[in-house]
Amino acid sequence: MKRLVLKFGGTSVGSIEKIRKVANIVKKRHEEGNEIIVIVSAMFGVTNDLIKKSNLISKDFDSKELDVLLSSGEQVSSSLLTGAIIGLGFKARSWMGWQVPILTDSNHTSSQIIKIKTDEIIKFISDGGIACLPGFQGISVDNRITTLGRGGSDLSAVAVAKFFETDSCEIYTDVEGVLTTDPAMHKKAKKIDKISYEEMLEMASLGAKVMQPISVQASMINDIPVQVRSVSSGKTGTTIISQSEIDYTKVVTGIAYSKNDAKITLVGVADKPGVAAMIFEPLGKNNINIDMVIQTAASDGKKTDVTFTVKREDLLKTLKLIEENNQYLNYKKIIHDDKVSKVSIIGAGMVSNPGVVYKMFSALGSEQINILAISTSEIKISVLVQEDVIQKAVKTLHKKFELD
Amino acid sequence: MKRLVLKFGGTSVGSIEKIRKVANIVKKRHEEGNEIIVIVSAMFGVTNDLIKKSNLISKDFDSKELDVLLSSGEQVSSSLLTGAIIGLGFKARSWMGWQVPILTDSNHTSSQIIKIKTDEIIKFISDGGIACLPGFQGISVDNRITTLGRGGSDLSAVAVAKFFETDSCEIYTDVEGVLTTDPAMHKKAKKIDKISYEEMLEMASLGAKVMQPISVQASMINDIPVQVRSVSSGKTGTTIISQSEIDYTKVVTGIAYSKNDAKITLVGVADKPGVAAMIFEPLGKNNINIDMVIQTAASDGKKTDVTFTVKREDLLKTLKLIEENNQYLNYKKIIHDDKVSKVSIIGAGMVSNPGVVYKMFSALGSEQINILAISTSEIKISVLVQEDVIQKAVKTLHKKFELD
Repeated sequence: MKRLVLKFGGTSVGSIEKIRKVANIVKKRHEEGNEIIVIVSAMFGVTNDLIKKSNLISKDFDSKELDVLLSSGEQVSSSLLTGAIIGLGFKARSWMGWQVPILTDSNHTSSQIIKIKTDEIIKFISDGGIACLPGFQGISVDNRITTLGRGGSDLSAVAVAKFFETDSCEIYTDVEGVLTTDPAMHKKAKKIDKISYEEMLEMASLGAKVMQPISVQASMINDIPVQVRSVSSGKTGTTIISQSEIDYTKVVTGIAYSKNDAKITLVGVADKPGVAAMIFEPLGKNNINIDMVIQTAASDGKKTDVTFTVKREDLLKTLKLIEENNQYLNYKKIIHDDKVSKVSIIGAGMVSNPGVVYKMFSALGSEQINILAISTSEIKISVLVQEDVIQKAVKTLHKKFELD
Repeated sequence: MKRLVLKFGGTSVGSIEKIRKVANIVKKRHEEGNEIIVIVSAMFGVTNDLIKKSNLISKDFDSKELDVLLSSGEQVSSSLLTGAIIGLGFKARSWMGWQVPILTDSNHTSSQIIKIKTDEIIKFISDGGIACLPGFQGISVDNRITTLGRGGSDLSAVAVAKFFETDSCEIYTDVEGVLTTDPAMHKKAKKIDKISYEEMLEMASLGAKVMQPISVQASMINDIPVQVRSVSSGKTGTTIISQSEIDYTKVVTGIAYSKNDAKITLVGVADKPGVAAMIFEPLGKNNINIDMVIQTAASDGKKTDVTFTVKREDLLKTLKLIEENNQYLNYKKIIHDDKVSKVSIIGAGMVSNPGVVYKMFSALGSEQINILAISTSEIKISVLVQEDVIQKAVKTLHKKFELD
């Protein structure tokens, strides 16, 4: 007998009809002889609606009360799903976060799970019961309701998998699995059977929507293999697993992109130690994430140009902060461009393939795609291009690295 | 310093704008130097919507999970209201039923409150905080969420008044108080300043919509005076109080009516002991409430006619049950009429006024209104009339007993 955690997202329980469907998937997995713990998100749209309500009350709505408010969404979906499972003739019950309890820190609206009490639920599921837990919510040491932040239901699933020592963690979605790229960008996108945590992390950060990066990270840290499954077929689409368990036949696993970038260049900054810190310190303090950074030394060795990218919504704030600091930075001029996008090739297989960078650049070059900036990691190469050629870039690289 | 419980119903918190308004009423009562505990219902329509969802899942939705589902409604309204109060610059927090805890029995969907723990909240409000509690919900000894049934928020308010020994229990509504009759029936309906628990109970049972009978009963048992207040003016409209504290200047306090009656007559039933029990036993077993009963002995002393009323929606079921039992009852024929209504005069002052019955009947008689059945209690006289004259009957009695 295996012990499974099955997680269903908001779209999967977005209507009564869909909740019935989920109940049938749960039923099937249970009838196959498994012990089942279900994690469920709020019905699609509910959390946003509650956030909207709280914003109408106050732009600065109390975070503790916001957690009380938001946790109601999963309370509704988990009780409805439990009722549906009972309606199919099975023994089932819901446990709210405080009933389990799922103990978290007191960092309201983005709490971290500290511990999950397991004995009561283990007794229930080993007696043939199906346990339904709302995702996203917990309870702090002060006995207040907490939430884990956006995408928190995935985190709940991973934590449940860890504390209940389940045999697998199944994340059900509307797509058939993780794809080699966004099918909206390139029709030849294909399902990836196995992907490492690290690759998935890059895919997620860069725009793949199956699982939140923070949840991939949690499964990586705890080495909990995740099965991404399709709600319609019920079958495993993609397994997210340790790199050591994958035989890499291809250099590149997937092509990710983002369309939310802006590029800033400070021209003629003094080329001396500490200048980069001086540029980025005020940005960091203001929660602006810097993505790519390039520093090009000037020929005279005294002045340098610093180029970096930020999220597009942070552009104006960034420019303001930089300009406020010019008395220290003393740059000659500032140039910015918010019509840029980033495309990345991701693959654990590229570590042992030194020719990958050349292959990528020549492929883009042969399509007249200009590279504005580059950043690399062990399993990823990202380049910045003009926004209007992003689709062409994705298609070119998808084909070049034999993913079509 | 006084300690108050303020209860707001679903229509009073039916929108964000209304929640803001409620927050301002709470603020005002707090600034007047009172310790405040707020009880709040779910936003208007929410509970019905959740019940509808559960019905779509299963006609026989699990009652324990239904309580988890339904309690989410008050969770939303109480956290929103708390956020609104904090937004006005006050110290406030919500406590869910399980956090207080409000301990109930395990009779899911219609639980009774056993005990409320008070120390944590008393500390909070005596430190100047405003406590917001969701009405309608509690927690059972088995650590499961329970609900108190329809109108349960009033029950929560009365129980909080009792366990926290508050100085008053304020029930806020959309109307200006309890009226002498339904203004939709008679424009000259006037606000009643003071009404006894017993009178209110009769008014409530017979159709006044301010407070559920079960909550009036609870306040009567615990002798907790209730102030019915208007959300728009914030002022006390009607005080529901012990009869001994009211000076009765009028015989009749109010005129109630119901339009949901049906009359059944069994003609020619044997006039022997036990026959009434034989008629009503199967009805009671099937949860059909009998209201008025009249037995008229036949002239020969052997046969009798039995007339009684039931709720209109129970008519068909009642007829079926009676017919199934005719082998024992052996009646001659059965007559029924679902176009009847009941009008009642209510007043603790009538006990000492023997002429009231005559006055009522003659008033109706002078308007050619035929009386089909009568029932009386110490503080109430009800008569059954044809539905089409009910408004005329209400107006006639309202005038006759000097309520206009």
